[in-house]
Amino acid sequence: MSPECVIGVDLGGTKVLAGALDDDLTVHHRVYKTVHGLPQRELIDVIVAAVEEVRATAPHEVAAVGFGIPCLIDQRTGVATMAVNLPIRDMPFRDVMAERLGLPVHVDNDANVAALAEFKAGAAQGVTDAVVLTLGTGIGGGLILDGKVYRGAIGSGAELGHMVIDRDGPRCQGNCPNHGCLEVMASGTALMREGTRIATERPGSLLGRALAGGREVTGALITELAHDGDEAAIDTLALIGSNLGVGIANYLNIFNPDVVVIGGGVVAAGDLLLEPARREVAARALPTMRDHARIVVASFGPEAGMVGAGALALDELRREVA
Amino acid sequence: MSPECVIGVDLGGTKVLAGALDDDLTVHHRVYKTVHGLPQRELIDVIVAAVEEVRATAPHEVAAVGFGIPCLIDQRTGVATMAVNLPIRDMPFRDVMAERLGLPVHVDNDANVAALAEFKAGAAQGVTDAVVLTLGTGIGGGLILDGKVYRGAIGSGAELGHMVIDRDGPRCQGNCPNHGCLEVMASGTALMREGTRIATERPGSLLGRALAGGREVTGALITELAHDGDEAAIDTLALIGSNLGVGIANYLNIFNPDVVVIGGGVVAAGDLLLEPARREVAARALPTMRDHARIVVASFGPEAGMVGAGALALDELRREVA
Repeated sequence: MSPECVIGVDLGGTKVLAGALDDDLTVHHRVYKTVHGLPQRELIDVIVAAVEEVRATAPHEVAAVGFGIPCLIDQRTGVATMAVNLPIRDMPFRDVMAERLGLPVHVDNDANVAALAEFKAGAAQGVTDAVVLTLGTGIGGGLILDGKVYRGAIGSGAELGHMVIDRDGPRCQGNCPNHGCLEVMASGTALMREGTRIATERPGSLLGRALAGGREVTGALITELAHDGDEAAIDTLALIGSNLGVGIANYLNIFNPDVVVIGGGVVAAGDLLLEPARREVAARALPTMRDHARIVVASFGPEAGMVGAGALALDELRREVA
Repeated sequence: MSPECVIGVDLGGTKVLAGALDDDLTVHHRVYKTVHGLPQRELIDVIVAAVEEVRATAPHEVAAVGFGIPCLIDQRTGVATMAVNLPIRDMPFRDVMAERLGLPVHVDNDANVAALAEFKAGAAQGVTDAVVLTLGTGIGGGLILDGKVYRGAIGSGAELGHMVIDRDGPRCQGNCPNHGCLEVMASGTALMREGTRIATERPGSLLGRALAGGREVTGALITELAHDGDEAAIDTLALIGSNLGVGIANYLNIFNPDVVVIGGGVVAAGDLLLEPARREVAARALPTMRDHARIVVASFGPEAGMVGAGALALDELRREVA
């Protein structure tokens, strides 16, 4: 086989990040473009331009393109059946992209490809069973089961953020009609909501004074003040970590995984988030599962989606050759 | 291959049920023995006797024996790592049985083999992805994913009853240290507990009068009175059904299965239990998952474990031949 490479594309609600990857997942060239608020036609044009720009500078011939997109995807058709932040719902995304690019195109949920990146070259390398949770605005979920990405009967599975841990909890976000999902209890959005609440209740804390001074209570601010020793910020992270731990304990009992990988912006808080999560897991999970699994931070940060999308394209290439 | 058959054995906390099965899972001969309270040595003797009795009357040569046992099993070693009601914890059950019987022996969790029975010849036949919940004293869970039983990294997965749906709910049962698990919210035990509570709160109801008259509030009594139109009994089943629905919605979002199969004694209540569950699912699950999955009653009743244990032995035989 002559040297060739793939292009991995991470499409988010606000940006597209594309890169050329070798078969060892080394990234050669990156292109970043904003797509916030674009209507469908312009969105597709920007994505095509990003891929073509990467292709023009790729070190080898490009054999396939992989996409990670923040949508539920019906893998039988390549159509996005649910898309919160992008105007591509009910569009045959895979076929449109293959037509525009003249290349084989593979599409998966962004959280599934992030899990694939961790499995191929990150924190879940060498295991057979891994649960990957990406904590951001929402919670993305990816599953590696018996050494493969698990996608469900029609490719829409692993919505791991939408597991209820508090049946009478707050209403979930976006298109989810549920209450008390892990996503509304332990995401970056939950961290900001609880941080704002605690800041209001404790006006004398550093967090309270920051809010009174007009600062937005972001995850970054909470993490910064917690590292400075502010109890209100520490308690906020402990609350979110504890909720996360309830969810992790559930996933240990359900999957008996080798490893649970936690990624996304929120993990910048490190042990201030993860120690309360681990304590909750120790108190709740069945001992056999608890004693087997490691709970670790993701290896890939903002490039997880792009690397995983490239890994998806490589996997599909190898399947065709085999 | 000359005609041969397998023996399936369902071992419970109180009984052992063994039967000879053809390769189409037809059961030929059944032996039932009680094992309640036996110490380990006598327990093993009774099991061996039951298998030998079936073997003596089997229509063909017996090629292998499968066991479904109510334990967590480390599939790397065949050792039961957690056994609530049987004195076989930390015992090399598989190897001991193979030695005593002089036959290949395969062991799995009772809920896993019940799922296998539904997949091979029951309510989950012909699908690729199924979630099987067996509601009894506890809740047994089995997973068919991508057309195979999913067991987890060391074979202890699919403890589907031990998923928290109410993080501050009641303490769970047996060896589970958790709170608000599906098992403590929607099992037969939960039905009896909530039925007793509601009977006490409503002394004028049929259920209340039955309790006052000295009857035990069993699932069978609640179901009988609900069919007679007693609102207290109907509300009890609706409460348990609603809790079950929260759990099913979680499993739809996590697995995107084709079918969710509900078995065990509690399903005798039929739609009085399942309609409230379906309403909860309709209100909570993500639409893509909800619209794809069927929620159905199990095909196998008390013989699910025996049939599934036989199916396990057959699967392993075919794997060796292939």
